[in-house]
Order: sequence, then structure tokens, then C-alpha cells
Amino acid sequence: MAKLSLRNRLWHALTPSARSKGLSSLNLFLGAAILLAVLLAILETEPTLSHWASVFWVAEASLGVVFALEYAGRIWVAAEENLKTPWRCRLAFVVSPAGLADLVAVISVFFWTGGAGGFLLRLVRLLRLIRVAKLGRFSRAWSEIRRAVLDRREALIISFGLALVAVLLTATALYFVEGTAQPEAFGSIPRAGWWAVATLTTIGYGDVYPVTALGRLLGAVAAIASIGLVALPAGILAAAFSEAMRGRSGEPTS
Amino acid sequence: MAKLSLRNRLWHALTPSARSKGLSSLNLFLGAAILLAVLLAILETEPTLSHWASVFWVAEASLGVVFALEYAGRIWVAAEENLKTPWRCRLAFVVSPAGLADLVAVISVFFWTGGAGGFLLRLVRLLRLIRVAKLGRFSRAWSEIRRAVLDRREALIISFGLALVAVLLTATALYFVEGTAQPEAFGSIPRAGWWAVATLTTIGYGDVYPVTALGRLLGAVAAIASIGLVALPAGILAAAFSEAMRGRSGEPTS
Amino acid sequence: MAKLSLRNRLWHALTPSARSKGLSSLNLFLGAAILLAVLLAILETEPTLSHWASVFWVAEASLGVVFALEYAGRIWVAAEENLKTPWRCRLAFVVSPAGLADLVAVISVFFWTGGAGGFLLRLVRLLRLIRVAKLGRFSRAWSEIRRAVLDRREALIISFGLALVAVLLTATALYFVEGTAQPEAFGSIPRAGWWAVATLTTIGYGDVYPVTALGRLLGAVAAIASIGLVALPAGILAAAFSEAMRGRSGEPTS
Amino acid sequence: MAKLSLRNRLWHALTPSARSKGLSSLNLFLGAAILLAVLLAILETEPTLSHWASVFWVAEASLGVVFALEYAGRIWVAAEENLKTPWRCRLAFVVSPAGLADLVAVISVFFWTGGAGGFLLRLVRLLRLIRVAKLGRFSRAWSEIRRAVLDRREALIISFGLALVAVLLTATALYFVEGTAQPEAFGSIPRAGWWAVATLTTIGYGDVYPVTALGRLLGAVAAIASIGLVALPAGILAAAFSEAMRGRSGEPTS
Repeated sequence: MAKLSLRNRLWHALTPSARSKGLSSLNLFLGAAILLAVLLAILETEPTLSHWASVFWVAEASLGVVFALEYAGRIWVAAEENLKTPWRCRLAFVVSPAGLADLVAVISVFFWTGGAGGFLLRLVRLLRLIRVAKLGRFSRAWSEIRRAVLDRREALIISFGLALVAVLLTATALYFVEGTAQPEAFGSIPRAGWWAVATLTTIGYGDVYPVTALGRLLGAVAAIASIGLVALPAGILAAAFSEAMRGRSGEPTS
Repeated sequence: MAKLSLRNRLWHALTPSARSKGLSSLNLFLGAAILLAVLLAILETEPTLSHWASVFWVAEASLGVVFALEYAGRIWVAAEENLKTPWRCRLAFVVSPAGLADLVAVISVFFWTGGAGGFLLRLVRLLRLIRVAKLGRFSRAWSEIRRAVLDRREALIISFGLALVAVLLTATALYFVEGTAQPEAFGSIPRAGWWAVATLTTIGYGDVYPVTALGRLLGAVAAIASIGLVALPAGILAAAFSEAMRGRSGEPTS
Repeated sequence: MAKLSLRNRLWHALTPSARSKGLSSLNLFLGAAILLAVLLAILETEPTLSHWASVFWVAEASLGVVFALEYAGRIWVAAEENLKTPWRCRLAFVVSPAGLADLVAVISVFFWTGGAGGFLLRLVRLLRLIRVAKLGRFSRAWSEIRRAVLDRREALIISFGLALVAVLLTATALYFVEGTAQPEAFGSIPRAGWWAVATLTTIGYGDVYPVTALGRLLGAVAAIASIGLVALPAGILAAAFSEAMRGRSGEPTS
Repeated sequence: MAKLSLRNRLWHALTPSARSKGLSSLNLFLGAAILLAVLLAILETEPTLSHWASVFWVAEASLGVVFALEYAGRIWVAAEENLKTPWRCRLAFVVSPAGLADLVAVISVFFWTGGAGGFLLRLVRLLRLIRVAKLGRFSRAWSEIRRAVLDRREALIISFGLALVAVLLTATALYFVEGTAQPEAFGSIPRAGWWAVATLTTIGYGDVYPVTALGRLLGAVAAIASIGLVALPAGILAAAFSEAMRGRSGEPTS
């Protein structure tokens, strides 16, 4: 094979689907830059770090340059897709979801001064991680998880539906039993529902809890039942993953 | 095939078991109406929403009209079951559990002013969801979950029995160790049991907790043991679902 | 078959291993009496129920008579084991663990006025439930659970060992990070360990929690890791139950 | 077989890989000494036990003598590895990771007066437990757990990645919804993240929680979603262990 042009080498480095396995160093660097940019967007919301604002500004601007260079590079190398129609390929990249996400990542640098809009724009950077996460050997794990969840989606929906019905029945019971003793916490179904959700998911904040003997008895019954609510989807997913793996390992033999 | 009468078309739309798969638009609409009616019944118990009472009244009345029309329609099309004895079929529907649940859904509108009786009557609407949930592809997931749980009911009962014994032993231990230090929270087995249930189900409200060194040591041991209590039913259910799926996929080959 | 004597019929009713399946009505009654006796022993520790003492006394005395009659009956019918040496069989029953547990159940009635010794004696009644729980179709579920747990005991011990190491490392980290800020809650490894156990088992009482930024960061890392700590034994047990069930269903074919 | 020398017998007792199965009494004793030494290091950090300091000192010194004797013994018997080059074998042991860990265990006795450095040095003793844990029948369980986790590492990394994204999205949502009502607890993404981690891992300390209606609604949705976050890795690990066990039991037949 003849010597590869710079554009072709850059295309192979940026577009990992063209590689057999693993990630190129360039993609690892860009992945780290995306993670750093998301981390910066998170830390910028913390008021006690406001005296570091200039550091954040420099870091954001540097990342903006990196993302701008990457965006320009991706437009340039898009021509490698089909060498006969380079500009058509480039236009196709610009209007593709991946290209738009890259453009947003560059633009979002100029919204760093904060506000909800600027922050949400920064979160779009997370979408770009999907491109990295889909690469190499993660790609098979992704598709297995998706397949296992989708294969059993009816059973999972039913188990979440049962969880909601359990929350509703528990909240109703405590509303009748504890409503008069603690009107602030159990004085309506939605209020008792906050306690029921925290109990049945085994979170248990402890901001509200039954104080009457009957309320505690019903609460204990709900707590024991919560074990089954967590165990049901865990069991369904475990079986789905077993099935997916057996299907994969069984394919060559059958 | 000859042109179908209006009654026949309505019967096919209302009775999804007569359809090959999926839900008719009419049944989707009725399912949404049931969910909305349950949501209304929940929100009406919230005192801070009392100034929205007239909105609730209009919504309830509208849903009442929908349910009344549905009830009348179901009686009318029940004749399609057996064209020779239309009135016998209609009577059979009225006294069937599904027909009674539909009647309650209509009647419950007139109890909207609240009170425990009226609320419980509204919850009966949830039962009607079962008819929707049993349809189409959910039907197989339902029967798989039921079969997996029923197949292993002895093992599940034993694991819940072990959980109760663990609660009893933990409560007894903490009653002896913490009872004198915190008589209000650990002064009897039932009181210590409230803490033991919250701990072993990993809820952990934090309203009561051991404060003595020995109490905390025993509490930590119980906490570590709680991992096994949650893992046991999860493992049993996972194996049961695996078995159920293997049985299903294995049927054609054996 | 000739007419069975009263002693033989009573023997069949009391000794369910001599029956093909299910529980005799007599054993169901005795099982309920044991559960009631345990419930009474629990409720008697509650000081706010002390004005019900006479009710408890009557109930305990009645159960004592039931257990005494059962004990006498079991000694009488033990002769059916081997008709040639009736008194040897009866002596063997009296000194067997089951016979001693029955004797303790009778004696414990006279310790009802309370105290730790009397209460513990009452808990011995729970042991007698094992005899009931081992009967009929529960017997196979029991042996499956035992086999699944014992088969994987090394893996389960290792996963609990990993949990303890995780608790130790988390407690050490928080002791160094939070020890100066909250000496009362994190001022030593054992104190920080109480928080670490509550966190890694996902109980989260909320009586103590890190307040410094670094402490919360480490706490969040520990919290995420706790998902794996719960998932590991659940996965091990799920695989063990799958194995046990496959072994059972596979036996006829191999 | 000729009479074995003392050095050879000691070598067999200290080096369990040379034994067919189980642990020698000497290794069990040393394992217990390591556990005791770790326990002592933990308890020495507790200020309320400072009047027991002399007891701790004696125990530490005794364990130091035991570890020193063991270290000397291991150097002595290392010659049995290759009888022709005894001193080369001994030097190889001294500079091996196991030999260095043993040396640290002896040295750490002299740092018992406390301080972070001395404590961390003591924790190195835990590493020596690995040598014990790798022995006999635990060795297979270890390798199975390692293999199950490593086989599915991509899926596990993805499920933890999904957990982090869920934490980020939940924290962002609550930051916008609750940030103004509770600036101290939800006034920035990192602050809201502390609540989001405690909620999605089902820990639920209860030090912070949403108070507005919309915040509680979003919190309840996050709580329900947390069931799936715990179930996903549990299911992946369960399938991996099933696979590992099937591979093991399937080897003789295929």
C-alpha cells in the first residue's frame, strides 16, 4: 500500500469505526477533553469556587480551541468518506447529529458565564461521549445491555408498574392510618407517597416516618415487601443477560 | 368478507382478546382515562389543592360520562359473544367481575366529595387496568413473572421467613444491649423491631439507631448480614426467570 | 388393612415424615400455637401493654397446657417407632434435640413474668418451627437453598471479606479526611467504621455523614462502590440457584 | 521416604502451595495473628481506649516478635526452593513483594505510637492476608470471581457509567428545581450531586432532601429509577457467574 496522505491518516485517527479495535490516542485525548469540559461545567455552578473564575475561563477557552480544531478537522477529513464528492460528504457531516453536537460543543464555550441555558448547552457535550463509548470492545457490551433490556421490556415495565401500584397502596394505607397523627407528612396521598417511595426503594431518608403503632406495623410490612420489589427487576435482568450470553456463546455450536 | 355492522366493529375495538396483537385506539384511550381518574383521586386528597376543587369536579364528571358510555357500550356489544342469546350474554357481562368493576367506576364519580369510602371506591378503578395490562404482548410477560414467582414460592417463602427470623434475633439482641440506654427506642422487642426492620431491609430511616459501642457493633453485623437477605430472594428470582426463559426457548427443540 | 389404633392414628398426625405430603391439621394447629407463643413473648416485653398482663397470662397458660398435652402425646406415640421396645423409643424421644425443645417449650410458660432468661427460653420455641418448616414440599426448597449457599460458600465468604476490606478502607480514608472536622463521628477508625458500614450496605441512617468537600467526594465514591458490594453476593447466589435448578431438572435426562 | 529435616518440615508448613489442600496449623495461627494485628491497629485509633495503651503495647510487641520469628523462618526455609543455591533463594525471597510485606509487618510494630504514617504501615498487614486467602479451596473461588468480573468488565464499566450519567442528570434537574428554595443543599451541581448519589445508590442519609412539590416529584422518579441502577450490575454479575460455572461444569462433558 502506498504512503497514506495526512488527511487519510487523520481520518483513521478520528473515525474509530474504520479501525479494527481499541481507541486511537487522538480519540482518547478528545474523550478526556470532553470529560474535563463536563467537569468544568459542573464546578462552575459552585458559588464557593467563584474566585477561581479566571482559571475556569482559561480552561474553557483552551477546550474551546481544541473542540474548534477538532470540528474543523472532522469537516476536512469527511471528504475521505467518498473521494469523488468531498464537499457533499462535508455537508452531510455538518448537518448530521454528530456534527451538530460537535458544533454545539464549540459554541457552548461562549456561554460559560452561566445561566441555565449555558449550562444545558454544556451538558450536550455528554452526548459526544456516546461516540467514544460506542467504539471498540465497548460496542459489543453496549449492544448486549440494550438487547437484554429491550428483550425483557414488557417484564421490566410490569415490574415497575407493580412497584408503582405498591407505592400507591402503601401511601393509601399510611394516609388513612397516620394522616390524623401527622397531617403535615401523611395528610394526603401525594404526601404519604413521598414516604412510600423512599421506603419501597429502600432509600429511607428519615425526614418522615410513621409514629403510631399501626403505622409502624404497616411500614414494616411495606419494608419487607420492598425486598421483593428490588429483587424482581434484578432477577429479570439477570435472566436476560444469561440468555444474551448463552445466545452469543451458543451461536457457533448450533 | 361482508361489511361489518357498527356493533361488531365496536365489539372488536372494546374486546382486545378478539384482536391478534396490540391495543385498539379505543382501549388506549380508555386506559389513559382510567390512569387519569386514579391520578385525580390521588390529587383530590391534597388539602393545598382544595381551591382547584371545581376543576376536579368537572374532570371527574367528564370521566364519569366516558365510563358510563363505555359501560353502556359494553352491555350493548356483549350480544356479539353469542348472536342467538343476546340478552343472556348481556346479563352475563353485568354480573361478571369485569362488569361489576366497570359499574363501580361509574358509580364512584358520585362519591367525589371525598371520605375514605369514596376514595377506596375510586381505587377500584385500578382493577380495570388489569384488563388492559393483560392484553397483547404484555400477556406473555405477565404469565412468565407469575410462573417464575409461583414455581419458586416455597424458596421465596423460606427466604422471607429467614428475613423475619433475622429481624427477630436482631431486635432481641438490641433490646438486651440498648434497652437501658434508649428505653424509648429499644425498650421492648416490638420497638427494637422497628429499628431491625429498617436496618435489615437497608432502608435506614435514622430516626432510631444504637448509640452504645456494643449496640453499634451488633448493628454493624446485622447491616452486613442484610446484604445476604436482599441477595437471597434476588438470586432465587433470577434463577426462576432463567429457568422460565430456558423452558420457553427450549420447547421447540425438545 | 386392619383398623388402626388411636395411638397409631395420633402418631401419623404428629409425625409428618410418615405422611406422603402436606401437613396434618394437628401439625398446622401446633405450628399456629408456636407462632402465637412467640408473638406473645414479643408483646410481653412492651411496657405500654403491661395492663394486658392478665390476658397474656391466660394465653400463656393455655398454650402451656397445649404444649404439655402435645409433649405427653409425643412420648406416648413414640412407642410406634418400634413396637417391640416401646419404652426405649420413648426415652430416645425425651433425650433427642426435638424432645428437649418440646420440654423447654412447656417449662418456659412458668418464666412468663419476664427477665432476660425467661425471654430467651421462650425464643427456643422458634426452634420447634424448624420441625414444621422441614415438612412436605418445603423440604425440597430448604435443601436447595442450603445446597446453593453451601456450594458457593467460598465465593460468598470472599465477597463478604471484600465487603469488610471495603468498609475498613473507607473508614480509614474518612478518618484521615473528616477526623479533625468531626472528631465525635470520625475521630477514630471504629467511629468512622460505623458510618462506613451504614454507607456501604446502603442503609444510610444519616446520624453521621461527611461535611467537608473531600469527605463527601470520597463518600460518593464509596456509595457508588456499594452497588457492586450488594451485586456481588446477589450474582453469586443467583448463579448457584440456577446451577441447583439445572442439576435437578437435568437429572432425569443424564 | 527418608526422615524429613526440620527445615523441610517447616517449609511445608509455611508454604501452603506445597501442600495438596487445606491450611497448615501454622498458617492458620499466622492468619489469626495478622487479623489480630489489624484489629489492634484499628482499636488504637480510638481515643476513649487510650487508658488501655499499655495492653495494646504488649500485644503489639508480642505480635512483632511472632512476625519477626516468622520472617526469620521464611528466610531460613527459602533455601528449600532450590537446594543448590540456598542464599540466592533467600535473597529472592527478601526482595519479593511477599518478603517486603513481611518486613513491613515487623517494622510497623515500632510505629505503634500512632500517626497517619504508622497506621498506614499497619494496614499493609492486610496485604499479607492475600497469601492466606489464595490457599486451598479459596483459590478456585477467587479465580472464578476474578474471571466473572473481568469477563464482563465492559458491561460493568458501562453500567457504572450509566449510573454516573444518571447522578449528573438528577443533580442537574434538582439544582434547577430546588436551588433557590435550598441554596445550601442544592445551590450548585456538586451540592445537588451529594443528594443525587445518596438517592440513586438507595443510601438516603436524609441530611438533605427536596422540599418543593416539583423537587419531590423528580426525586420520586429518580428513586424509582435507582432500582434499575442496582439491578443492572447485579444482573450482569449473576449472568457472568452462571457463565463461569457452566464453563467449569461443562468442561468434562465437551
